[in-house]
Amino acid sequence: MNLLLVDPLELNDNQQIRLTGRRHQHLRDIHKLQPGDQLKAGVLNGLAGTATLLELEQDSSLLALDVHSQPPAPLPVTLILALPRPRMLARSLEHLATLGVKNIHLLQTAKVEKSYWQSPELRPEKVHQHLLLGLEQARDTLLPTVELHQRFRPFVEDLLPEISRDTYKLVAHPGDYPACPRGLEEPTTLAIGPEGGFVDFEIEKLVEQGFQPVQIGERILRVETAVTALLAKLF
Amino acid sequence: MNLLLVDPLELNDNQQIRLTGRRHQHLRDIHKLQPGDQLKAGVLNGLAGTATLLELEQDSSLLALDVHSQPPAPLPVTLILALPRPRMLARSLEHLATLGVKNIHLLQTAKVEKSYWQSPELRPEKVHQHLLLGLEQARDTLLPTVELHQRFRPFVEDLLPEISRDTYKLVAHPGDYPACPRGLEEPTTLAIGPEGGFVDFEIEKLVEQGFQPVQIGERILRVETAVTALLAKLF
Repeated sequence: MNLLLVDPLELNDNQQIRLTGRRHQHLRDIHKLQPGDQLKAGVLNGLAGTATLLELEQDSSLLALDVHSQPPAPLPVTLILALPRPRMLARSLEHLATLGVKNIHLLQTAKVEKSYWQSPELRPEKVHQHLLLGLEQARDTLLPTVELHQRFRPFVEDLLPEISRDTYKLVAHPGDYPACPRGLEEPTTLAIGPEGGFVDFEIEKLVEQGFQPVQIGERILRVETAVTALLAKLF
Repeated sequence: MNLLLVDPLELNDNQQIRLTGRRHQHLRDIHKLQPGDQLKAGVLNGLAGTATLLELEQDSSLLALDVHSQPPAPLPVTLILALPRPRMLARSLEHLATLGVKNIHLLQTAKVEKSYWQSPELRPEKVHQHLLLGLEQARDTLLPTVELHQRFRPFVEDLLPEISRDTYKLVAHPGDYPACPRGLEEPTTLAIGPEGGFVDFEIEKLVEQGFQPVQIGERILRVETAVTALLAKLF
């Protein structure tokens, strides 16, 4: 936990928060803070700064927040990601939040097992928890949005034009395509397929919407590795 | 398992292999192969190609190998990595094998907990297993070497000059340093610190050996994320 992240609703009028549970235990047992000690802190969707430990008890701690700086800049990307299998989804969401992706669309494609949509990992509270862990890691405060789209074609035809309007549109796909570009600064929409890849029809539909297929070499990467590698190359 | 990887010692004179255990179960239950079916296969530290299923029984299967192509090109990098905590080590080794790193040196630094060296994850058979999983993912056959160095200073002073001779030398370190270069093709030695970073003394010793500190932004990444992001930017 590189950042203590608090919800604005948890703060009292004096900018103080009483922690219990995971965050309290972490401060007590891992950081081993004593009253008067400080640590980095941030307000969810707000500013970052420091928290000072005022009181430490067995089951709770009281801290005062002093926040004044902007969180790290987001990546200028909207990510369209074929829904990964549950264990990979959890890790991918953490990676994405850590790397600074703020707009995530999870999508059904031909090679996504339909049962994945019933996974507990997709429950809003689980998604929220993974995103928070990712933000804490990167000392970021800005919560990504995650939208679910269980039908490929209506998403691509009806929603994607607006989502990707005026952005550089890329779809990562193995094959005889140009190499993934590097060092972009403009707003970008990036589509990433499932472990088995997009099928031809899906690539055609994305190309119709202006998406350019790009590749990152012949090695087959896990989704979580591919996502990190693509974002690192692009930005 | 994108590639069935077999040890040359497992093959008989007719280039056949009888599989039991994990690989057999995977072919039977996940790939659901039937006699006559083919899948991608490779010989450890050798060529890649296909395997044809000849016989399928409950507890074993017999396959014939036909290998003729080179595995994917390795990355031209030697990685010096502060020993990660055990759970992260396992995942990092898989990522590194998948990404094509062939020379890995795991190193003690000031912020590496000494207890990590006693972890079962460091046993040769566990390291080997993680590397194999990474190779299978990327359809690679070339096993990386992993060397352990439990003393920082003797490693850097006595071994690193030879290890990094005639290579581009980089150390990833947060701070006011140049951005990580992109699209390298020359042989490179890359040093990556532990989650808490290298200490000043360690950076000084690396700089003395010709290492240039570079940074990848203000976000604090987990080791496994940082490794993937750095390699994706560099190559």
